[in-house]
Amino acid sequence: MLSDIEICRITPLTPIDTIATQLGLHTDEYQSQGAYKAKVSLNSLKRIHSQPTGKLVVVTAITPTPLGEGKTVTAVALAQGLALSLAKNSSATHHLASKNNKHSVMACIRQPSMGPVFGVKGGAAGGGYSQVAPMEELNLHLTGDIHAVTAAHNLASAAIDARIYHEQRLGYEHFEQRTEMKALRIDASKVVWKRVIDHNDRALRMITVGKNEADKTINGFEREDGFDISAASELMAILSLADSLADLRQRIGRIVVAYDIENNPITTEDLQVAGAMTVTMKNAIEPTLMQTLEGVPTLIHAGPFANIAHGNSSIIADNIATKLADYTVTEGGFGSDMGFEKACNIKAQASNKAPDCAVIVATLRALKANSGLYDLRPGQAIPESILAPNSEALVAGFENLKWHIDNVNKYGVPAVVAINRFPQDTQEEIDQLIQLVEALPNNVSIALSEGFVKGGKGALELAQKVVVQCQTPPHFQPLYSLNDSIEHKLQAVALKGYGASSVTLSAKAQQQMLQFTQQGFDKLAVCMAKTPLSITTDGGSKGAPQDFDVPIRELKLCAGAGFIYALCGNVMTMPGLPEKPAFMNLDIDKNGEIVGLS
Amino acid sequence: MLSDIEICRITPLTPIDTIATQLGLHTDEYQSQGAYKAKVSLNSLKRIHSQPTGKLVVVTAITPTPLGEGKTVTAVALAQGLALSLAKNSSATHHLASKNNKHSVMACIRQPSMGPVFGVKGGAAGGGYSQVAPMEELNLHLTGDIHAVTAAHNLASAAIDARIYHEQRLGYEHFEQRTEMKALRIDASKVVWKRVIDHNDRALRMITVGKNEADKTINGFEREDGFDISAASELMAILSLADSLADLRQRIGRIVVAYDIENNPITTEDLQVAGAMTVTMKNAIEPTLMQTLEGVPTLIHAGPFANIAHGNSSIIADNIATKLADYTVTEGGFGSDMGFEKACNIKAQASNKAPDCAVIVATLRALKANSGLYDLRPGQAIPESILAPNSEALVAGFENLKWHIDNVNKYGVPAVVAINRFPQDTQEEIDQLIQLVEALPNNVSIALSEGFVKGGKGALELAQKVVVQCQTPPHFQPLYSLNDSIEHKLQAVALKGYGASSVTLSAKAQQQMLQFTQQGFDKLAVCMAKTPLSITTDGGSKGAPQDFDVPIRELKLCAGAGFIYALCGNVMTMPGLPEKPAFMNLDIDKNGEIVGLS
Repeated sequence: MLSDIEICRITPLTPIDTIATQLGLHTDEYQSQGAYKAKVSLNSLKRIHSQPTGKLVVVTAITPTPLGEGKTVTAVALAQGLALSLAKNSSATHHLASKNNKHSVMACIRQPSMGPVFGVKGGAAGGGYSQVAPMEELNLHLTGDIHAVTAAHNLASAAIDARIYHEQRLGYEHFEQRTEMKALRIDASKVVWKRVIDHNDRALRMITVGKNEADKTINGFEREDGFDISAASELMAILSLADSLADLRQRIGRIVVAYDIENNPITTEDLQVAGAMTVTMKNAIEPTLMQTLEGVPTLIHAGPFANIAHGNSSIIADNIATKLADYTVTEGGFGSDMGFEKACNIKAQASNKAPDCAVIVATLRALKANSGLYDLRPGQAIPESILAPNSEALVAGFENLKWHIDNVNKYGVPAVVAINRFPQDTQEEIDQLIQLVEALPNNVSIALSEGFVKGGKGALELAQKVVVQCQTPPHFQPLYSLNDSIEHKLQAVALKGYGASSVTLSAKAQQQMLQFTQQGFDKLAVCMAKTPLSITTDGGSKGAPQDFDVPIRELKLCAGAGFIYALCGNVMTMPGLPEKPAFMNLDIDKNGEIVGLS
Repeated sequence: MLSDIEICRITPLTPIDTIATQLGLHTDEYQSQGAYKAKVSLNSLKRIHSQPTGKLVVVTAITPTPLGEGKTVTAVALAQGLALSLAKNSSATHHLASKNNKHSVMACIRQPSMGPVFGVKGGAAGGGYSQVAPMEELNLHLTGDIHAVTAAHNLASAAIDARIYHEQRLGYEHFEQRTEMKALRIDASKVVWKRVIDHNDRALRMITVGKNEADKTINGFEREDGFDISAASELMAILSLADSLADLRQRIGRIVVAYDIENNPITTEDLQVAGAMTVTMKNAIEPTLMQTLEGVPTLIHAGPFANIAHGNSSIIADNIATKLADYTVTEGGFGSDMGFEKACNIKAQASNKAPDCAVIVATLRALKANSGLYDLRPGQAIPESILAPNSEALVAGFENLKWHIDNVNKYGVPAVVAINRFPQDTQEEIDQLIQLVEALPNNVSIALSEGFVKGGKGALELAQKVVVQCQTPPHFQPLYSLNDSIEHKLQAVALKGYGASSVTLSAKAQQQMLQFTQQGFDKLAVCMAKTPLSITTDGGSKGAPQDFDVPIRELKLCAGAGFIYALCGNVMTMPGLPEKPAFMNLDIDKNGEIVGLS
């Protein structure tokens, strides 16, 4: 079989103007960026706002191996399968064909970070015959949104250090006389806004900034700092949760970047940098329209990771897609304890649009990995033995899938399990898995997804089962109300959500919870940062663990995004590069074409 | 008068497809990026390569004040003036109208860095009625080229620290067994590749990376590091000096990023990251086509500063423009001791295309500032008194202009002085200046430029004088040959170029010179990094100083760019933000439009 980038290069694509026109977008509602990308203007939302809202399908997964289980490939395959399936039945069904456009399906996907592209995981455009195209544009800069987030974020960092420097250099009073601005009196030890970069760069996790040659102060004042990956920036969360440019501006102005010497919060508005940050992100707020290899229109927007951020593509993209299409397929990162939990508790509470159906991606290899019978270590290759049939391991690992089905149903959302089939998977094991799922009392069905090899045709049954589940009368319920206390919300996710037996806040986290509550920041959602390799906070704990504690070592206020970020266990907000990073395979060939990207 | 961004917003622009078509570009030779930007494919060069080469006009300046003297506004005004003038005379002149396109003039401008946009200087799109449009796109992300340079640069940084980490963590032998790769044995104290960011952020000048919590090593090994501004990245220089994608790939592979424990150079090729860096910059190598407010096609490409880098837009852009247009107007940053020197000694020696004429921008305020009679300090407002007529100061400051005219002629290039007129300038002083210039024995003429207020019509006389000077038979001569020794080349620029009486290399610089020579890196150009506020290395020394020394504190090898970078005096490769940065004025208004950008 051809490589992902080869398949992508030989597949004829539709000009993006045609895609946009077929969607019913007016010519002043999008701007083409080359032949196959277009920025969609938010003005379109004003016009289509009153159209009926289509169904929203969220693709999630069981607890994955470090390689990922093909959530994007399944989401793209499903979107392509739905498009084929609905086109076939367009005269038969009820509210389909109710809109004046050819496309009744859209996909909404996150923009991949270059960190994983160059690191371990590679690209995130799907794969095989179920990709978003052109995949090299998606996986690299695309239309620059992540760069814009990074630039706006680091502008605030430069503004903080410059302000500390000038106020301390001149003295507060002299500073005020000279600049006619109020001194902010920032406590340099209480800067909570780290810098960001879109790379896996462990050396930047903990750094000292503002160092000087002996006897000099021209570089500012020394303090401890660090870089997170851009996907973890509060601005990335804001980009995905804002519903307009005005909302983006207001949310950015609410960001707390530091505390002053009397412990009062200092915002970007106080630094007079919120406007410039918004200006820097002005184009980023427009989703980028692309297409799948079978021409399904796809919006790419925002890229928060689901382990160290809230892990879902943007509300703006969903808002546009659900007005333009009957079915919108999107995905929440990692397992349903990660991106899907946040899709329900953070995103849906902000957007007032609940998922109509969840697709849980499972692979035989990840099910068996969840048995705990194999020696799996992050950063190392998966043992070959896991690919051989093993009924015992499959049954043991099934407990993890069962947990995720229960978890999805817990929110009142119907589920379809998608078996992302690999070439070496045996029919016996697949049949066994289908029987196990069909025996469950849950609101769940199951279908194969062979989108990697067959494209949309490999996901027709999956598409049909999703259409059926979307007819379930809605009774969505998040795990908590924003009006609950911070402690209640943390417990809701850990105990009701993960099934933990306890939550333990460190002394630091307790003190932070008290402070945020006192300062009026308690009506926000909670965003858990934890390992995606287990339902618990211990990446080695597989299957469906019970009787575990969720240790929270630190809280972070994201007043602009609208949540409090809880760092659980030893999760890190800046990945590192492995011994043999993916970048070693990348190059250009003699014709100037990219090779080695997958 | 309206603000720059207001003028830009109300001026009707031509669709970029029309501009491209009028230039004679085929539809497969460019890709529109929205309505008013297009990436020009390097394939176009293959087709137009055999067309006659037009004239290349380099706009330079006298020694400027920290506010700049309007070099870009004059370059844009001149391009617009030439377009008007040539259109009028198109039947009369000789080799004009020899090409099948409407445009006989193009401009080639650097992409502005966001550092100055948010810092002191503001945007760099020109101003008033002589701007590149849309100015907010030019001044912010444009088509992402600077972001691509930043990303590719920092990928190499992450690769270096990751390699050091894994080799030291595992031990060289174990690393080699486990990865089947050769251990590079990098000396962590001899990493010469700093990180970069496109912001003015003094706190990042000197940092410590790889710090850990007590007893841990998971973040790598501690070492001293720092960030330069992206404009100073060797990759930015490579982008401007490469002539094809293949050349870009080869130059990137030659970059020396560190030395091993036996002091052998380690390149990006050794790290197997050169391919991925090239892939990251694959779109950046295509110039971005825009237009001036009067529709003159303008290529924007690369953005090295002229004080801390080589300060000229790209060879690729010039190569395309001089084939498509009869006249190409470009600019070299700061005074003729800075960007113009490098345009001749670095860029022209690499491209084999010498300037046909230099335009020296002068303002009355900068001439008077060069008298040394005013108290000017960087970071502070220019004294009001400098705007009042002062014949004595003008005559004293004229010495600086005279120096720059001599300097340009020294390279065999004819000169035109452009007086960039400000509203408060008196006719008496302008007449006095014209008389002073006309009395010189040099190959020079002089004209007013009123492009800010009048657009191209304000630069008609300037355009005519430039056309005349371009007829001078060419006898270009750089100051040195690449085959000269490093010491000879440094002396050529300092003694012959600046007129210094001596060059003093620090012990460190001497040792570096010896090492680079021994390692075979002595056949490269030299790139001086120094203050732009004086011809000397002391920013306070105005006019046309004599009998001064050029102290060189450090050399840096840029084997990919093809030069040795000499840090003179206390020049810094990372600017800082002032007390009241320009970003404080930026915001979006109720209609979502940007305000406060100039």
